[in-house]
Amino acid sequence: MRSLHHPDVASLDLATVLNALADPVRLQIVGQLSAAGGVVCGGFDVPVSMSTLSHHLKVLREAGIIRVTQEGSRRRNELRLAEIEDRYPGILPSILGSVRSTA
Amino acid sequence: MRSLHHPDVASLDLATVLNALADPVRLQIVGQLSAAGGVVCGGFDVPVSMSTLSHHLKVLREAGIIRVTQEGSRRRNELRLAEIEDRYPGILPSILGSVRSTA
Repeated sequence: MRSLHHPDVASLDLATVLNALADPVRLQIVGQLSAAGGVVCGGFDVPVSMSTLSHHLKVLREAGIIRVTQEGSRRRNELRLAEIEDRYPGILPSILGSVRSTA
Repeated sequence: MRSLHHPDVASLDLATVLNALADPVRLQIVGQLSAAGGVVCGGFDVPVSMSTLSHHLKVLREAGIIRVTQEGSRRRNELRLAEIEDRYPGILPSILGSVRSTA
């Protein structure tokens, strides 16, 4: 697999970050990442097809919210919590808190 | 003017709220509302036409983020900060903090 592009946090745009999170399935994905301690290898429990899930993961990756790396035959999805927190303090924790309380 | 619809906070959906905020002009609008203490009567200093501004204000109103009322010949736009805070703690303050720090 070729290396996937991950934007630098300094280049992130708040509207793009919020837009990436403004979707019920993507909120479920970041909620499951958060519940799993920030890292999920393999799949997510979401009511969409594999190709739709791939699209959602791409949107989150391109907005700087997750880092995707290959580990053997599986992909490792990691929430870039500390980096996002450094750039936009409080936003991701508060959104994750609301995802948890309504899950 | 007929009375405008304002959703009840209990009916709000996090993805809808985030989607309403996921736009550079709408972030400017809520930033200016915040800087003005939560209320702006009349216009905003944004680089869009009046009709585009009206569209953005409608999106924010329908997502429960602002309350729009007529005051004489002008419209009063008010940030529903306390209500949103009650439903989704921390989200609006953290977004407003990031808008201020990058303005």
